[in-house]
Amino acid sequence: MKAADQTIAEGILFTDEYQLTMAQLYFRMGLHEKLAQFDHFFRRYPDYGQHQAGYCVNAGLEWLLDWMQEAHFREADLEYLRSQRTRSGEPLFQEDFLAWLRVHGSFEGITLRAIPEGRVVHPNVPLTVVQGPLIMAQILETSLLNHLNYPILIATKASRIRESGQRRLLLEFGLRRAHEKGANAGARAALIGGADFTSNVGVSHVLGYPPKGTHAHSMVQAFMALGMTELEAFRAFAETYPDDCILLVDTVDTLESGLPHAIQVFEELRRKGHKPLGVRLDSGDLAYLSIQAAKMLNQAGFPEVSIVLSNELDELVIWQIITQIQREAPRYGLDPDQLIQRLVYGVGTRLITSWGEPALGGVYKLVAIRDGGEWRPAIKISESPSKTPNPGHKKVWRLYDQRGFATADLLSLEDEDPTQMERIVLRHPSDHTKRRVLHRDEISQIEPLLQDILVEGKLVAELPSIEEMRAQRQADVQRLDPGVRRLINPHVYHVSLTQRLWDFKEALIQEVIEANE
Amino acid sequence: MKAADQTIAEGILFTDEYQLTMAQLYFRMGLHEKLAQFDHFFRRYPDYGQHQAGYCVNAGLEWLLDWMQEAHFREADLEYLRSQRTRSGEPLFQEDFLAWLRVHGSFEGITLRAIPEGRVVHPNVPLTVVQGPLIMAQILETSLLNHLNYPILIATKASRIRESGQRRLLLEFGLRRAHEKGANAGARAALIGGADFTSNVGVSHVLGYPPKGTHAHSMVQAFMALGMTELEAFRAFAETYPDDCILLVDTVDTLESGLPHAIQVFEELRRKGHKPLGVRLDSGDLAYLSIQAAKMLNQAGFPEVSIVLSNELDELVIWQIITQIQREAPRYGLDPDQLIQRLVYGVGTRLITSWGEPALGGVYKLVAIRDGGEWRPAIKISESPSKTPNPGHKKVWRLYDQRGFATADLLSLEDEDPTQMERIVLRHPSDHTKRRVLHRDEISQIEPLLQDILVEGKLVAELPSIEEMRAQRQADVQRLDPGVRRLINPHVYHVSLTQRLWDFKEALIQEVIEANE
Repeated sequence: MKAADQTIAEGILFTDEYQLTMAQLYFRMGLHEKLAQFDHFFRRYPDYGQHQAGYCVNAGLEWLLDWMQEAHFREADLEYLRSQRTRSGEPLFQEDFLAWLRVHGSFEGITLRAIPEGRVVHPNVPLTVVQGPLIMAQILETSLLNHLNYPILIATKASRIRESGQRRLLLEFGLRRAHEKGANAGARAALIGGADFTSNVGVSHVLGYPPKGTHAHSMVQAFMALGMTELEAFRAFAETYPDDCILLVDTVDTLESGLPHAIQVFEELRRKGHKPLGVRLDSGDLAYLSIQAAKMLNQAGFPEVSIVLSNELDELVIWQIITQIQREAPRYGLDPDQLIQRLVYGVGTRLITSWGEPALGGVYKLVAIRDGGEWRPAIKISESPSKTPNPGHKKVWRLYDQRGFATADLLSLEDEDPTQMERIVLRHPSDHTKRRVLHRDEISQIEPLLQDILVEGKLVAELPSIEEMRAQRQADVQRLDPGVRRLINPHVYHVSLTQRLWDFKEALIQEVIEANE
Repeated sequence: MKAADQTIAEGILFTDEYQLTMAQLYFRMGLHEKLAQFDHFFRRYPDYGQHQAGYCVNAGLEWLLDWMQEAHFREADLEYLRSQRTRSGEPLFQEDFLAWLRVHGSFEGITLRAIPEGRVVHPNVPLTVVQGPLIMAQILETSLLNHLNYPILIATKASRIRESGQRRLLLEFGLRRAHEKGANAGARAALIGGADFTSNVGVSHVLGYPPKGTHAHSMVQAFMALGMTELEAFRAFAETYPDDCILLVDTVDTLESGLPHAIQVFEELRRKGHKPLGVRLDSGDLAYLSIQAAKMLNQAGFPEVSIVLSNELDELVIWQIITQIQREAPRYGLDPDQLIQRLVYGVGTRLITSWGEPALGGVYKLVAIRDGGEWRPAIKISESPSKTPNPGHKKVWRLYDQRGFATADLLSLEDEDPTQMERIVLRHPSDHTKRRVLHRDEISQIEPLLQDILVEGKLVAELPSIEEMRAQRQADVQRLDPGVRRLINPHVYHVSLTQRLWDFKEALIQEVIEANE
């Protein structure tokens, strides 16, 4: 895309057409400045087919806020809207509406609360709560969903991969397989969710992390095409990067050529006082080859050299590799734990695309609208009760049990405070037969999750650094029950309503049903 | 991301770190200005799990060229590279290398041939062929793959969905579920591959198509929360958009409320001389509801009103809907073909993410390097022979049989011309037992596929318009054997080597094997 076009296509017009036609309708009906509240939430965890998430990691907010700060209807945008035509050839958008957009068409009037990035989150819990004039809160929908859904998906996948890899070094390598420019948001989300570094240079620069990498097969091939050898290619790399030398050993033959040549070069480095860093395995049976590589490296006196694994890795593949090493390494006289400690994972395609489930079905639902000085709750009754959103203004609380584990997320009415309750009734959001009662002494902590972020467009929170998000994620994941963290068929974490919110929702549902009879 | 950061993260640093470290190594070894050739190709069609592609649609080139034209090492980029450190704290990149990048660090020296966007393409065929100084051709890798892999994936998916929907109107609705900014490239690829329009306003503007949309549930909900009814919401919409009125009928109850209300409003529109456009069904059994909707609309005298279907559609779901309508519609006294003719498909998540296979494994492989006035072919022997790339300079030809169907893509050496051959031997690229012989009179047309696009950075081709790409795609798809177009287990299209290219590749493989013995 040309640079000038990018300004158009990534600004306020980075939205769906129906947001603009609905906006004009609200304007025409005089509803446009009524305050409305929309909740952003997802309805179920990613299901990757053979395996399923039991928690998600929140991400994306800061870049959404950056977009909201810049996006507004510029003259060029209005000019384009002015050129749109109805089927009968009339202007689709009227001048009075465009004039309103010229003055008010920004997100300055938006108040936003959110669960911070890096926090573990669950279905049907409002992650981002938007209040503002109906027209702009509605126009925000598409871009908000676009900026949040994908990062949550990737932060979640990164967390699973990190956990599966026993929290060893994890590198994000997916730029070439990402969905075009979305790669940058994906790399950022991966860093929040569990990757230590990314190969993506630009986003590393922007976020203040050193980018990481090794070398490609093409380097060895170029040397060989020019009549030189793999050994000479390795030696050139070692001479150029004596203190950062990771060698890709599978261009010719991993065990017969790549590893012996790498060890020869490592010995040369050692003689010159340098410490070689690692080898990379990018094909074949990575568990078997890791064992063989470790054995050869140990015998040559390089027990601390890392073994970087890449090639279509994801949480299941890594789990399988570790399991195989645990079983097989002792047969080769190796300590499996020592070997696992030196592994590094380079994960590309399957992290950056969330292989198995490449979209999070996050939604943005109208839950209340202000009229005549009063908030009116909005509800939509679906065919499946579990899809009916929780109406009105809500607070979100996380309850920890006496082990310090999170035991439930609780949605309450805005004027409720569970920290003041002796006995908390947790209602299932849609199944009226399911409830649970917690007494105060069963609970070690009750934590409110939503924070004020924007008040009428003004940033009122200090946004956490990526480091802080990572620390938060790690703490949150540690406080999940191991059953919830399981890769396959995880235990279901409870998201519940207080009795009063449940009663409020039920009454509204009955009202709608009766109104339609 | 902040606007200033975007300039950094989407410019020349939109690459992997190892491209830059390899670049410096080539510079250090004096190899940096040697001419190199890299081929971009994919190794297999997308496999969506339950169904598989039998062809792909090429896309992405124009926006890659836009990126290449802008991207170069600016002072700020070099400053960042200067700040990078080795593990021992020394500068990672040396001043002489950075000085070279300052002068030569753009894609001005790149010569590029490609198969045009919109063309049907197949595995192991070079889609984009890059020649240029080793250093810049290498640095180009990541961004080239990023800019081409995803659009090919989406254009392919769009073509499948279009074919499955019997070429009825197809709308791209995926912005909110796309991988952040990749949404725009995805929408463009969808338009090339088979979507008629997209809901994405910005990209529609940039590409010159009117954006399309209906309205959301939230509009009806807002009216209801304010004490009004679905009917009043529909009426307001119809008054605002009398000639473009498509009503979403499932907010309350599709058959009991939405459709009767829509018909009432359509009757009002008709009385005022307007032609209502459609209804949208977004939940439930879309085949059954389409039949019921058609029946009700017909009875009310609206046989031409469109029925827009949305909600997790893809090629299999659409195929199933059509099959069910074909079987069930007659039982309700409806002509199934007439009903199918009025369907419109709004496809979101599963198109924009290529659900089932969210990445194309396109690669960029060094195939030749120039040394001492001569090109040296490069080859990498893989464990599986089918992954060994075809070396050296090649031409690509498409052979059509006497029915006018494409029967094979043929790779030849650069000095070969199959149009001059009486008898063409088609060798399987890796299986030496498989060959096929075509005589000239069995072939109706032989078409060269690669076009000159850039000669030393200068654009030498007129790039096709989206309309031209669409016409080309349609023609190419029509000229595929129906077995190849099948949604599930498609017939395998032949991609072959000429005998001379086969011999050349075999000799190289033997050479490498012997050199390693």
